[in-house]
Amino acid sequence: MEINKRSECPISFGLDIFGDKWSLLIIRDIMFWEKNTYGAFINSGEKIATNILADRLVKLENAGIIEKQEHPESRAKHFYKLTKKGIDLMPILMEIIVWSDKYTEVPREAKLFSKLVKKNRQDLIKKISLGLLAHLQKPSKLSK
Amino acid sequence: MEINKRSECPISFGLDIFGDKWSLLIIRDIMFWEKNTYGAFINSGEKIATNILADRLVKLENAGIIEKQEHPESRAKHFYKLTKKGIDLMPILMEIIVWSDKYTEVPREAKLFSKLVKKNRQDLIKKISLGLLAHLQKPSKLSK
Repeated sequence: MEINKRSECPISFGLDIFGDKWSLLIIRDIMFWEKNTYGAFINSGEKIATNILADRLVKLENAGIIEKQEHPESRAKHFYKLTKKGIDLMPILMEIIVWSDKYTEVPREAKLFSKLVKKNRQDLIKKISLGLLAHLQKPSKLSK
Repeated sequence: MEINKRSECPISFGLDIFGDKWSLLIIRDIMFWEKNTYGAFINSGEKIATNILADRLVKLENAGIIEKQEHPESRAKHFYKLTKKGIDLMPILMEIIVWSDKYTEVPREAKLFSKLVKKNRQDLIKKISLGLLAHLQKPSKLSK
């Protein structure tokens, strides 16, 4: 789907796609928490509303950030994965974590993760990306 | 001002503050384009509406991201600067630029900037931050 660009600015283009309070949280869920279903996204701590979730899933799919497949274990639900384009949002999410760790109280595991990012950013991105890319080939039976 | 957190997640916290289509564009204007006034923000390519701009300026000021001061050359306008907390959003903006450069057509100068980020991220952040921090001490007579 063609994105309706507000300008030629690359920052504006990014925000045209994920510039809202929810899209990057869905991406976070798939990227870092191995959540892959509507039901799993709904249960995240921020309590996304069902209509907002449904809307964002369609938008992210149309933008080529996520891919919807049949769930390997159930015909009643779909399995959502990040595409390569979605996985490549990882550095943005990592920098948000580092910034928030600096300017607010974050849980211990987020603090540790932020420390890892600052220490060894490229290796961490590579490692998590490889896992997600493998996932892109074949949905894991273990995923929620 | 206390931010109303949706969860303890650092990504969610960041989005509570700048998770919309416009806030990071205002920050971009100050950070990379030396724009510091309401009039300059209004004239940016995305054509932000006056009510949205006024709303976001108040929110960003309340969140401690920007600071409003008297304009050194005119009593009719204010001069907006990034605080240290605002300047520290730079890596997030840079990663959005790199991502968009990968997935859409961006203007030549954005492509060059993205190349610089990929090549020498830390030096670039340091250099631009130093300029903005100097600005934080004393508004420049040259700024719009």
